[in-house]
Amino acid sequence: MPRNAFYAQSGGVSAVINASACGVIETARKHRKHIGKVYAGRDGIIGALTEDLIDTSKEGRQAIAALRYTPGGAFGSCRYKLKGLEENRAQYERLIEVFRAHDIGYFFYNGGGDSMDTANKVSKIGRTLGYPLTCIGVPKTVDNDLPITDNSPGFGSVAKYIGVSILEAGLDVLSMARTSTKIFVLEVMGRHAGWIAASAGLAGRKAGEPPHIILFPEITFDEPAFLARVKETVERYGYCVVAVSEGVRNADGKFLADMGTTDAFGHSQLGGVGQVVAETIKRAHGYKFHWALADYLQRSARHIASRVDAQQAYAVGKAAVELAVKGENAVMPIIERISQKPYRWRVGVAKLEKVANQEKKMPRNYITADGFGITAACRRYLEPLIQGEDYPPYESGLPKYVRLLNKPVKKKLGTPFKI
Amino acid sequence: MPRNAFYAQSGGVSAVINASACGVIETARKHRKHIGKVYAGRDGIIGALTEDLIDTSKEGRQAIAALRYTPGGAFGSCRYKLKGLEENRAQYERLIEVFRAHDIGYFFYNGGGDSMDTANKVSKIGRTLGYPLTCIGVPKTVDNDLPITDNSPGFGSVAKYIGVSILEAGLDVLSMARTSTKIFVLEVMGRHAGWIAASAGLAGRKAGEPPHIILFPEITFDEPAFLARVKETVERYGYCVVAVSEGVRNADGKFLADMGTTDAFGHSQLGGVGQVVAETIKRAHGYKFHWALADYLQRSARHIASRVDAQQAYAVGKAAVELAVKGENAVMPIIERISQKPYRWRVGVAKLEKVANQEKKMPRNYITADGFGITAACRRYLEPLIQGEDYPPYESGLPKYVRLLNKPVKKKLGTPFKI
Repeated sequence: MPRNAFYAQSGGVSAVINASACGVIETARKHRKHIGKVYAGRDGIIGALTEDLIDTSKEGRQAIAALRYTPGGAFGSCRYKLKGLEENRAQYERLIEVFRAHDIGYFFYNGGGDSMDTANKVSKIGRTLGYPLTCIGVPKTVDNDLPITDNSPGFGSVAKYIGVSILEAGLDVLSMARTSTKIFVLEVMGRHAGWIAASAGLAGRKAGEPPHIILFPEITFDEPAFLARVKETVERYGYCVVAVSEGVRNADGKFLADMGTTDAFGHSQLGGVGQVVAETIKRAHGYKFHWALADYLQRSARHIASRVDAQQAYAVGKAAVELAVKGENAVMPIIERISQKPYRWRVGVAKLEKVANQEKKMPRNYITADGFGITAACRRYLEPLIQGEDYPPYESGLPKYVRLLNKPVKKKLGTPFKI
Repeated sequence: MPRNAFYAQSGGVSAVINASACGVIETARKHRKHIGKVYAGRDGIIGALTEDLIDTSKEGRQAIAALRYTPGGAFGSCRYKLKGLEENRAQYERLIEVFRAHDIGYFFYNGGGDSMDTANKVSKIGRTLGYPLTCIGVPKTVDNDLPITDNSPGFGSVAKYIGVSILEAGLDVLSMARTSTKIFVLEVMGRHAGWIAASAGLAGRKAGEPPHIILFPEITFDEPAFLARVKETVERYGYCVVAVSEGVRNADGKFLADMGTTDAFGHSQLGGVGQVVAETIKRAHGYKFHWALADYLQRSARHIASRVDAQQAYAVGKAAVELAVKGENAVMPIIERISQKPYRWRVGVAKLEKVANQEKKMPRNYITADGFGITAACRRYLEPLIQGEDYPPYESGLPKYVRLLNKPVKKKLGTPFKI
């Protein structure tokens, strides 16, 4: 007898997390012998805890297909980390209770390191409670910090967006530098790992091309060295474009964005490391600056998604279902790089316990000796991930993204659960 | 005998100003009987004053064709306004001196209202000094604030970028709002006119879709009304997306961005009205927020240019040359809207003296009565301008934009001119 599947999106969403959802749902629909309906958690795992399930079988084939090119999290996601099994066993037991009530035999969890940890724990408690449950992780993180997998779906599209943005803004600043803005700073995501910051470096293929300086969270901010490099760059090229990770810290380990800036009411303000860096340059050298904060624009920019990224996001969703049907458990499909040139990849498998709660940072040899740029090795790693465009369809000038019906599954327990 | 032409880009660049340059140069090359070489000013009008001319005849046909899809200002632009004829007649005389030395009989000036004023003045002094010069303006401004023309090349692409960005980021915030960010603020350009802010409104086609609130420079910021609307929106839809123009002012006429924010060193900071607005919401309601500052990204985003905009930018460049060859003088090609549905347009003509130094602001009937959104009339005006995609070619995952040779024309005067 087929059993139902539960799918949930977890943590920060991306331009292609719905492509993974599409891969899961379309593939599940092809395995009716094993999988009944796919229920999605409304707002991620919270949907499971509160028995707030979405019946994806109510969505037509076209709507599900449109997920492949729709950014954001179509069923809702959440920032809600389940505690350790020992600390809050009740949460895990509740999950199993809900799964039991809805005959859910498959648990697909689409997220980053924390989520893989959760999926791993759920697989264990299922066994402990005598409830057979197949738990498969589906990798997703714009930060590209999951271990073992060569790269993480979601990252390639942010990388492409950042590379394109630096290239374009760089041409703008170059045009005007003589009489106007000489400094342009783009603040990018990546609080702990510098992968997104590194992707800015893809725009600069020849000497002197932007970005002239990249500030990585892996490298302690050295203000005198930075300011000297900015000056040298402006004197040589007439302008200087800087990409800075939100996670850059000074020698005291403090975020640069946390430099005591206060508003008119005396409240301290966080964020805006781009502005902090730009102001630092202004104070030292007097150069006119502009800065940009891409924020959510970078991780939702499906309009300029990487084709490779979109394909891989779909592939890991598809593979997750295939692994489940084959009887695998507590695993996560990963991306394996088979060859560099031409770039070829395939889907492999890793155990959840190996990927849980680990962060893959930039290796030192991907960052130039001076700490301000990417090496050829880094470029070789990154470049394949932004290959190809995968434009969504348009209607009246704007992308035609889908909004699902998201019809609820009738509750069977009805018991409340406080989240 | 054919005479040479001078072409310069002026003021802030755009995603399609080079498409106008392409239109000018390609069309001039078809009128060899009238036009010899096209010389471009390096860094705009400064290039003319300093006799720093670029010989575009050294660029191959493919390089010039690639201008059609390359953002920024290929010859450099500048923020340098010529003074009034009375104040600094020497500047104008110098221009004529340089033009005379290089047998320049055509002056094509690609810019906004200030630049049209300059072009108009240049046409007058040419007459005064007995130097026959054909002066044609080529409209360009992302702010869409030129009068007479139905719209300005450069604007449609920013409008599309902002509409796409709000749509995408809106889906992101919607996914996460239950447990994470409830407020998203996007700061957009447009210090005096709200056209760009209005374009955010294109993303919201149905009730409840982002942006929920737009703040226009034309409408005085009413904090209590704004905060009430934010609360109402969050309570109803779970989140609130705000697009705010950099030029929004409070009842005292002060920019919101100038609210006394100081850094750790006590320096006052300008800019970041998006952050000011977001912090204001946070203080009043406690909602978690994110904000983004698109800055130059919006006006250089050629990767998502409007096809209509790119076509019109080319068309006005082409028309400028055709008008010159026909013997017109002191005019500017404009965009005329022939029909709304289907949208059809043609190139018309306006006198430079009519377009100089004027700003077209949003009419009040384009803004909803509450001041927070766009009306159906505004949507009817804006929507045609973002129609169609016009993707640049890609190479290794990034747009293949051209960098011209920009070879200098040999100086004939050699006399220095201090700018």
